[in-house]
Amino acid sequence: MKVTLLGSGNVATHLGKALQEAGHQLIQIWSRTLANAEVLADELQTGFTDNILQLSDLADVYIIAVTDDSISKVASAFPFQNKLLVHTSGTTDLNIPRISGVLYPLQTFSRQTVVDFSVIPIIVEGKDETATNLLLQLARSLSSKAVQLNSHQRKALHIAAVFACNFSNHLYAIADEILKNNELEFDLLRPLIAETAKKIQENAPASVQTGPAVRNDQSTLTAHLQFLQNTPALRDLYERLSQSIINFD
Amino acid sequence: MKVTLLGSGNVATHLGKALQEAGHQLIQIWSRTLANAEVLADELQTGFTDNILQLSDLADVYIIAVTDDSISKVASAFPFQNKLLVHTSGTTDLNIPRISGVLYPLQTFSRQTVVDFSVIPIIVEGKDETATNLLLQLARSLSSKAVQLNSHQRKALHIAAVFACNFSNHLYAIADEILKNNELEFDLLRPLIAETAKKIQENAPASVQTGPAVRNDQSTLTAHLQFLQNTPALRDLYERLSQSIINFD
Repeated sequence: MKVTLLGSGNVATHLGKALQEAGHQLIQIWSRTLANAEVLADELQTGFTDNILQLSDLADVYIIAVTDDSISKVASAFPFQNKLLVHTSGTTDLNIPRISGVLYPLQTFSRQTVVDFSVIPIIVEGKDETATNLLLQLARSLSSKAVQLNSHQRKALHIAAVFACNFSNHLYAIADEILKNNELEFDLLRPLIAETAKKIQENAPASVQTGPAVRNDQSTLTAHLQFLQNTPALRDLYERLSQSIINFD
Repeated sequence: MKVTLLGSGNVATHLGKALQEAGHQLIQIWSRTLANAEVLADELQTGFTDNILQLSDLADVYIIAVTDDSISKVASAFPFQNKLLVHTSGTTDLNIPRISGVLYPLQTFSRQTVVDFSVIPIIVEGKDETATNLLLQLARSLSSKAVQLNSHQRKALHIAAVFACNFSNHLYAIADEILKNNELEFDLLRPLIAETAKKIQENAPASVQTGPAVRNDQSTLTAHLQFLQNTPALRDLYERLSQSIINFD
């Protein structure tokens, strides 16, 4: 297919590469900041513009990959009536003027890491059967896990991903900070983090929960809260997450 | 070396296997519950007892692997004066009567998963140089990452591990629950969790933080809190963890 990307951030970058690798043709990159459009267009060897009215009409699909707050604005400025315009957000409604579909790749995109799209679930929703089928076809060309969900389920999945991915990464960052404050290297924790994520590849997470809270090991919990008394925000998080584990069933 | 294990839980089980694989000789398993001692002794093909006064004096090292609350009690009942008695706890002091060292394997042990000890950091602390050297030697036979730390650093490392491992796993469990409530499979999240843990193997976690909180994407944060309004405990956790990300520097 012929695809134009509206956006130049992490999602646009990784999606653009994946589309090219799957054999699709990138027609153009649009960004409201010309320099950003140019950087990504250079990387992907295609055209670019910062004027949405100058978009080429040659693409079959126009994919908006901007922050959720800006999707409506970009959509309302989109100049074509009969082109498939989709967004890539986990949480934003399908029901936005001019938007006829959603293509949501469920992954954490950082500038510095390469992403293997073939194992990424790609969530698809279309305003009508034509849009849905075209998006499913596009998703299947990128990944072996194309899934059609409604907006409510897509949002639930996004929230679950925030807990499992964004919040977990933040806990890694907190751990890093605790280590630094005690002159210890984060490297000590890397094998443990890898093993924790590996365990749930074949088990339900609740069935492999370990640590002082699930054992209700009060003397360790008390010792840890005592240790954290000079960092009240961390102490509070430790207490709440431990209580959440104790209450979980 | 000749080693006797006092305990029959996950740590004793995995440690016992690793010791045998490294060529050490398991003399005996003690547990206060005879049936548990027997199950593990059968698995490791060694002797067992539930009477601590009947422990064989043939071992060089006696390793206590019981809950933190029970370490003192087991140590005080230990019948030998001149034997090296150590515990495996991240948080418990070295300064306990009869205890002369600590051998703390930094890993999450579940009954159902096999653990590769060779990449696990093993933290060592001895009451004197003889104890320290013997424990370092034992740790190095099990792992390429034997590290000598003081009690304060060991506790900091344990707390960091609770954040990075136990709490992350709990977030996976919460995500699983959100998915189930919306008729979605946990399988959808497994690639994302794997990628999140993989990214920090070569990056500092704070440098690869993604998600609505770090972007301060208020419309997504509001939509997610709205979605979670009927599960106030989850809503509260979502709000606090997001705020913690926003405040982090």
